[in-house]
Amino acid sequence: MRRLGLYLHTLEKLSRGGEETVSSEELSGRAGTTAAQVRKDLSHFGSFGKRGLGYSVRELERELKEILGVDRSWRVALVGAGRIGSALFEYDGFDARGFDIVTVVDADPTKVGERWGGVEIRDIRELESVLREEAIEIAILAVPADAVQEVLECVTSAGVRGILNFAPAQLRVPEGVSLKDVNLVLEMEALSFSLTNRPQDR
Amino acid sequence: MRRLGLYLHTLEKLSRGGEETVSSEELSGRAGTTAAQVRKDLSHFGSFGKRGLGYSVRELERELKEILGVDRSWRVALVGAGRIGSALFEYDGFDARGFDIVTVVDADPTKVGERWGGVEIRDIRELESVLREEAIEIAILAVPADAVQEVLECVTSAGVRGILNFAPAQLRVPEGVSLKDVNLVLEMEALSFSLTNRPQDR
Repeated sequence: MRRLGLYLHTLEKLSRGGEETVSSEELSGRAGTTAAQVRKDLSHFGSFGKRGLGYSVRELERELKEILGVDRSWRVALVGAGRIGSALFEYDGFDARGFDIVTVVDADPTKVGERWGGVEIRDIRELESVLREEAIEIAILAVPADAVQEVLECVTSAGVRGILNFAPAQLRVPEGVSLKDVNLVLEMEALSFSLTNRPQDR
Repeated sequence: MRRLGLYLHTLEKLSRGGEETVSSEELSGRAGTTAAQVRKDLSHFGSFGKRGLGYSVRELERELKEILGVDRSWRVALVGAGRIGSALFEYDGFDARGFDIVTVVDADPTKVGERWGGVEIRDIRELESVLREEAIEIAILAVPADAVQEVLECVTSAGVRGILNFAPAQLRVPEGVSLKDVNLVLEMEALSFSLTNRPQDR
């Protein structure tokens, strides 16, 4: 999955550069893999490319977008309008990929009613009804760790099936809900752990 | 490793709340695991806790900090002062854990020389010498995907052994360097992939 995303990013770059075909060797480069792995990954989804001619950049780009579900846009809610939340809201990468943050929700009464671009910040007490009204499909949770399990339960009750969580907590999710965690402090701790516990090589 | 970080976060919360002991059951809660797993994880690092009495919160907190290498502070450089970079710079979680961003580097001449808090933004052309001068141990890379492999090579040449990368590229790192990737777009694509390809359950 991760590699498919990396292939797609490479294809888009080639496409912007006007390239028409690409070999599995070229595709493997940015994904840090081998040409054989590229061919194997793509073969799971059907038959692409012509032997000796490589893949059509546009065709493979279109197919991968469809496979990844990014040939459409997604209605996304951002829950939590703090520092991480506001950086995520401004992050161009989501927009460019069709992840449209159409709703922002926060618990801070001084923030509720504020507008970010065209989006009004709504009160977390109305979370479930806002998510339903706005037909939200994916929620990004940028709330404190203490609050996140409760927020998640409300979000899934509202029918949201995809969740990207930034709070440093291990969440329990109902069956049928996909959860991805991004925990910046844990990533840094993993680095300090490996720098501390490795044999000295300097 | 990830679980150790989650245990530590739980212990710190208990400690702030004035708790003196904790059972493996309580510790397992936030880490989404079982009491048996907690005991097993901790037993790798020595003998903690007393049967029937649980663990001393303060003692286990101190031990885990040492194991994770967060009983000290780390000198961190932020490479890339764009949107993601500035959110990371302001992110309290790093500071609280002893990850001190003491240097910021960017390629944009209009940003170089600007001050963020007490930190002056330095020119990326001086990257290697700045990292050496500042005795940087960990670098956070928030630069465009096109530039990141080159930046990484410069950073590792300067002796940096821990890297947290936010650019959507698969990096090749030299032996002895620890790399963690945070790729927000890939995480969102993983969600859209699973929402697109799962059997309909709604």
